[in-house]
Amino acid sequence: MVREGGETWDQALALASRAVALSDPNPRVGCVIVSQAGALLGQGHTQQAGGPHAEVMALRDAQSKGHDLRGATAYVTLEPCAHHGRTPPCADALVAAGLGKVLVALADPNPLVAGQGVARLRSGGVAVEVLPPGHAVAQAARELNIGFLSRMVRKRPWVRLKVAASLDGRTALPDGRSQWITGEAARADGHAWRARATAVLTGIGTVLDDNPRLDVRAMPVARQPWRVVLDSRWRTPPDAALMGVKPDDVTVIGLTGTQTDDAETAARCAALIAKGVHVIDLPAGPGLDRIDLGETLAYLARRGVNELHVEAGARLNAAFIEGGWVDELLVYLAPSVIGPGLPFADLGLLPDLTAAPRFEWRDVARVGDDLRLIARQAGADQF
Amino acid sequence: MVREGGETWDQALALASRAVALSDPNPRVGCVIVSQAGALLGQGHTQQAGGPHAEVMALRDAQSKGHDLRGATAYVTLEPCAHHGRTPPCADALVAAGLGKVLVALADPNPLVAGQGVARLRSGGVAVEVLPPGHAVAQAARELNIGFLSRMVRKRPWVRLKVAASLDGRTALPDGRSQWITGEAARADGHAWRARATAVLTGIGTVLDDNPRLDVRAMPVARQPWRVVLDSRWRTPPDAALMGVKPDDVTVIGLTGTQTDDAETAARCAALIAKGVHVIDLPAGPGLDRIDLGETLAYLARRGVNELHVEAGARLNAAFIEGGWVDELLVYLAPSVIGPGLPFADLGLLPDLTAAPRFEWRDVARVGDDLRLIARQAGADQF
Repeated sequence: MVREGGETWDQALALASRAVALSDPNPRVGCVIVSQAGALLGQGHTQQAGGPHAEVMALRDAQSKGHDLRGATAYVTLEPCAHHGRTPPCADALVAAGLGKVLVALADPNPLVAGQGVARLRSGGVAVEVLPPGHAVAQAARELNIGFLSRMVRKRPWVRLKVAASLDGRTALPDGRSQWITGEAARADGHAWRARATAVLTGIGTVLDDNPRLDVRAMPVARQPWRVVLDSRWRTPPDAALMGVKPDDVTVIGLTGTQTDDAETAARCAALIAKGVHVIDLPAGPGLDRIDLGETLAYLARRGVNELHVEAGARLNAAFIEGGWVDELLVYLAPSVIGPGLPFADLGLLPDLTAAPRFEWRDVARVGDDLRLIARQAGADQF
Repeated sequence: MVREGGETWDQALALASRAVALSDPNPRVGCVIVSQAGALLGQGHTQQAGGPHAEVMALRDAQSKGHDLRGATAYVTLEPCAHHGRTPPCADALVAAGLGKVLVALADPNPLVAGQGVARLRSGGVAVEVLPPGHAVAQAARELNIGFLSRMVRKRPWVRLKVAASLDGRTALPDGRSQWITGEAARADGHAWRARATAVLTGIGTVLDDNPRLDVRAMPVARQPWRVVLDSRWRTPPDAALMGVKPDDVTVIGLTGTQTDDAETAARCAALIAKGVHVIDLPAGPGLDRIDLGETLAYLARRGVNELHVEAGARLNAAFIEGGWVDELLVYLAPSVIGPGLPFADLGLLPDLTAAPRFEWRDVARVGDDLRLIARQAGADQF
């Protein structure tokens, strides 16, 4: 069967999407290899970190079927890697297999790749074409990897802040009761968004008030996202529910210089460290007594966080929004009107309405009895 | 060309929808007449009140083309009328034209019709079939006339409360500044919803604070909706912007027994009356010093209001919501987060979340940079 280019790209993107909630911190990549006559020879997607990349999976698939790959064409949704990481360079593997051409949807801004993958292929005698950045396939490949690209280019994760609220923006009654504002389907959908993030971040207030697990339970997953707690004064209980079964997947970020404030604090830190929790300290923001969010995001990027999923209380949500750190709002909106209650963000008074953070609606869906609204900060994805 | 029944019903519904923003207080009805061989003979929809109904329009259309209607079939989206109102009974006109069959999408609950239209057709020798209430065409005909049916069955209008708010449910900054929360497209879309209502209702607070016109300016219309002000103490300025060019399309509803509270109030009422404004008084709700909303809605139904479009401030919105009078919320939601500001409804504290009024999402659309959300009170349309 002869294949059209568009169809092959769709297949490569579909493969890449299988790497969501799997390949972190590596990008989500799909690869399809077709013969000169247009027949499908092999396909694959990035595996878990340390495992093979998409190109190697596709080569193995083709080779396991006994196909001769000389002169064949590979469609890859991201520029093949050129460096020895935990796996050998994919560019070399494609050259070694004798491919005639590689079509690349998107250049990789990773400084370890950044054009070197293409150069290595060409110097190996393989023709390479990179799609123009405005191409629909390039844009889809970019969207799939918005977190990876953010980490590479902006040196911080793509921040998605999740909220579940009533139509009038309330998350709970004034005393904190919040049962049944949004429904079961919204909860399950929220787990899917947790699953695709490298890490889920919350604040110590939420840990102490709600003791959430912050893991993915509504669906099977190959890996759980890390849990990160912003906790200036090291108050996270060592037996908090978010420790789950792997406390070494938990990071508690406190304020620099406060670990030995008193014996009790020092003991709490020691208990966390003894448990295997990652305990790190970061400086406060200018003039503030709380951890600098810019420093936090830079730290998380260094740790390999692509998409950061924030599920926090009104104070921390406000700090993220007012700091301009929220790239995307993920809002589950119930068709209810609560009246007096807790806001989803405890924001300060605006001097005027033009000072409001500017978001743009990106997606709307019905999820059970609720709506799921996605708004993106204007220009956040232009990097 | 032979026509399918489903296609003819779609055409009849499309005709009925042309009567929206035109036929009030009469229902929105479409009529298509086809020959025994299935050819289109005539079509029409209800005109402005006092003008011909859909059936007569379709008969005239067919007759003007010289068609013989004997034995023909009429598709009518609502039971033909059987009474002499401002026009003679449509049932008689269909009989007189010699039609063989009339298909009716929906029975008319109007006590002046209620089965008598069907009976009159049958006694005139015309076969009649009424679609079962669950039929998609019957439901579409019902939705088109939800206001008319509400007035006939519930003796009150269908109440649609319109709100324009930020994602956190704010309509303005604390000092009332509200420019640019939602955009121009949302404003124009809101005018289309005003246009389909028989009346637009607001409170005296909004009149004094914002002095809105509350008319339809974003599109040409055959008729402007009436403007109704709830104004316990008769404070509506005779030169308020909502008087527009036809003060006799304005009704000011005050509190019974307060018109002669003092000379100044009496003078204000006299000035409104002199201007041609309808001035009526209604009793307060039990134990309250404000006009009873149930009485208000009953009064408006008696005046022929099918759909009531409420655009009011936080206090009146809250009274409508808390009283359970809101059948439908029409919300324009901006992708902005305001923080401290005015809520769209100044509701009282709930004892618990299960006491929140229950709505259900019905429709979501992008309108310019904003979202338009429609939520219906659970069960409100079950009458």
